[in-house]
Amino acid sequence: MGAGVIAMEQSTEKPKHLLDFQGWSRAQVESLFETARMMQEVLERPVKKVPALTGFTVATVFFENSTRTRLSFELAARRMSADVLSFSGATSSMAKGESYKDTLLTLDAMGIDAYVIRVDAAGVPHQAVRWLGKPVINAGDGWRAHPTQALLDAFSLLERLGTLEGKKIAVVGDILHSRVARSNAELLPMLGAEVWLCGPATLLPGELPKARLTTDLREALQDADAVMALRLQKERMDKGLLPSEPEYIAGYQITRERLGWAKPTAPLLHPGPMNRDLELEGTLAESERSLVERQVANGQAVRMAVLYHLLVGRR
Amino acid sequence: MGAGVIAMEQSTEKPKHLLDFQGWSRAQVESLFETARMMQEVLERPVKKVPALTGFTVATVFFENSTRTRLSFELAARRMSADVLSFSGATSSMAKGESYKDTLLTLDAMGIDAYVIRVDAAGVPHQAVRWLGKPVINAGDGWRAHPTQALLDAFSLLERLGTLEGKKIAVVGDILHSRVARSNAELLPMLGAEVWLCGPATLLPGELPKARLTTDLREALQDADAVMALRLQKERMDKGLLPSEPEYIAGYQITRERLGWAKPTAPLLHPGPMNRDLELEGTLAESERSLVERQVANGQAVRMAVLYHLLVGRR
Amino acid sequence: MGAGVIAMEQSTEKPKHLLDFQGWSRAQVESLFETARMMQEVLERPVKKVPALTGFTVATVFFENSTRTRLSFELAARRMSADVLSFSGATSSMAKGESYKDTLLTLDAMGIDAYVIRVDAAGVPHQAVRWLGKPVINAGDGWRAHPTQALLDAFSLLERLGTLEGKKIAVVGDILHSRVARSNAELLPMLGAEVWLCGPATLLPGELPKARLTTDLREALQDADAVMALRLQKERMDKGLLPSEPEYIAGYQITRERLGWAKPTAPLLHPGPMNRDLELEGTLAESERSLVERQVANGQAVRMAVLYHLLVGRR
Repeated sequence: MGAGVIAMEQSTEKPKHLLDFQGWSRAQVESLFETARMMQEVLERPVKKVPALTGFTVATVFFENSTRTRLSFELAARRMSADVLSFSGATSSMAKGESYKDTLLTLDAMGIDAYVIRVDAAGVPHQAVRWLGKPVINAGDGWRAHPTQALLDAFSLLERLGTLEGKKIAVVGDILHSRVARSNAELLPMLGAEVWLCGPATLLPGELPKARLTTDLREALQDADAVMALRLQKERMDKGLLPSEPEYIAGYQITRERLGWAKPTAPLLHPGPMNRDLELEGTLAESERSLVERQVANGQAVRMAVLYHLLVGRR
Repeated sequence: MGAGVIAMEQSTEKPKHLLDFQGWSRAQVESLFETARMMQEVLERPVKKVPALTGFTVATVFFENSTRTRLSFELAARRMSADVLSFSGATSSMAKGESYKDTLLTLDAMGIDAYVIRVDAAGVPHQAVRWLGKPVINAGDGWRAHPTQALLDAFSLLERLGTLEGKKIAVVGDILHSRVARSNAELLPMLGAEVWLCGPATLLPGELPKARLTTDLREALQDADAVMALRLQKERMDKGLLPSEPEYIAGYQITRERLGWAKPTAPLLHPGPMNRDLELEGTLAESERSLVERQVANGQAVRMAVLYHLLVGRR
Repeated sequence: MGAGVIAMEQSTEKPKHLLDFQGWSRAQVESLFETARMMQEVLERPVKKVPALTGFTVATVFFENSTRTRLSFELAARRMSADVLSFSGATSSMAKGESYKDTLLTLDAMGIDAYVIRVDAAGVPHQAVRWLGKPVINAGDGWRAHPTQALLDAFSLLERLGTLEGKKIAVVGDILHSRVARSNAELLPMLGAEVWLCGPATLLPGELPKARLTTDLREALQDADAVMALRLQKERMDKGLLPSEPEYIAGYQITRERLGWAKPTAPLLHPGPMNRDLELEGTLAESERSLVERQVANGQAVRMAVLYHLLVGRR
């Protein structure tokens, strides 16, 4: 009996971190989404602020720059009345060779209650858990994971589609280098969806568990319930590491015509910032099919919910 | 009757934005100044804070850098208990070619209540009004307008002179490239003043409605009730786009002697930051004629009043 | 009698600034540490926040970059409910030649209650006192002083050793260019300690009052009650302005073996950020001898106490 009880307890125990979806159950994700729906109501009020995290200090530690993601987390934290310590690797002694560990331990000594970490080296947030003993939220580590992006994507899809059970979700672009694709390929199947990852052969990984890979855009989009275009890194393109713009557009740009292969009301997602007229036909982003702004708005609600679950659950 | 009523309603309707002074009446500016005088009282208390904007989020979006103006707005917003989202173009995905519109729509999706926008391209704040549907405050767009600077100038002048009715205000320097000059030339005549704009011929625009232009410093300063020196951009000077320092000083520096042409108690203004011993004789900035620090202090009161009028009036 | 009374009154009067320890008595430092111990208790609560400085505005003015010190002060201020205005010289009109004085007077006009100033030019915080008439905290000026670092060092030493009376404290490294060494050599003797400053001959100043200077590491460490390693500036090393890494390590690195010359439980301090395996054997920083993280934690309590003493005592 012992082992069974322990297993059951583990499965109902609240996760202490959000590194990826290892250790998260479908029920836990759904519970998080319930909280996020309450946060959406807060965000529709004139006074978009709750006292839930008064006196808590949330550190955003961005070893890799990302203004949008950092602002989204910081605003979410402040709307819950937390204090925010904002650390950016680029302007700090990191430039002088201080290690990730020393930096995090120094911040920790100032009395931090939760960490939001963005870093170009995969696995650093996992190490941070061992170093810090505080809730850690992965805001993107290398190509590995970007779980709050996947959560806000799933939340936005659920809002539009009602359920993800049996739905076909096509993700298109540079899959190989995309933490967004990897996190979605982990989370969406957990919620019942079938995930298709599509891009040029040079931009597909060998395999990903639970996801289907294809170079054929038509196959990916055919009867899809939703389509997600990923951001291409033009810097990589300019270095010849990606197909050229004309090649990519010819084969993989999401156009109105190609979107017609998907179900008639299939929504279109993009994690932003967009390269207009590259990943997708420019005007599609403003069409009623687009969830692009809704994704950003839901990012607030989802990130508030994540902070709430990880911090208040531990008091 | 209908049209007349509508016109009257429009003229008493509170402005929704502060882009320039189009759509602002003298009565509306005076009402704003009444609020600013209340804010001055708040700023003289030990606890310089009011709860008026609790739960509101004000975004400062500076596509062009300006630390002083940004800090002034952010402190004004926080002293009214608003949350502040601080976006700086230089450190963001703007560098990767994201458009003004995409950036603003992304921030807007996070739930922003008002925007403070500084940008080197004239007209972007006007476009932002169409994109966002939220109050927009222009914190400087190209050479076009910098209305809160003109408001704090006018407010400081009224404080010293009692009225602007029939007063002669001389503005001296690089008029052509100055949004400060343009906004003052719009606002001060609305409040009854006569504005003289003075500088070398190469730095004067063809014409400006409601203002008088002259290259003759003596003509501009003669019997003036107040003198405003503008900031010269030394970078432009070094490139040969402006007169040389010695030439400028010889013709247009405000010295104690030249200030003697104006009325005996005429105050001296400068929007800052000053190039000492260039636009004006260094010690003049500390003389009792100088309003330079008073302008900065009034900037707090005026910006708090602007935020209050645009945000609380809309609830 | 008059002069005696005045002297007594002066000695019990609360200091208005923290520039260095001129004008601070031992009793005043001990009173500050009592407040810091109360702040430590606040920092151990789930709600690490007190309303003591509500409505006050603290400006952190960093003409020289230092992310860690700036964050420590800003978090301390916000945990006392102050508003923080964060000014960094690098991103401002300072780059355009604005003087320290003009910058500070401009910020002051916005209504600042206390200043935290970091600057590479010694003496600027002293000048700021004359310009501003508000409490000024020196967060490091050139090689001259860094008093809050010395306070947190002394506070951490007292916590571990109980008293500093008659204790031998060895400070090792680039003494010549170290404001941390100078401030410790001023404060620790005031609290009864004997300070030894040790480094290569080229990195020792001619003399320092109240401290003993030696190039002999063994002499400095022998029976020491505590050992403090200073940060070396590798940039200076690379330019040939310091001994080479191998030379420094051979003569002055704090190793486990050399730490054995000190008393058996003598703690090891470092102001951070560390160059691991240069100033000290890497693993020593994590040993139970190390106070490195405790120093950072105490930095919060001490800086909260400094702000409290300088601001609330003046109301």
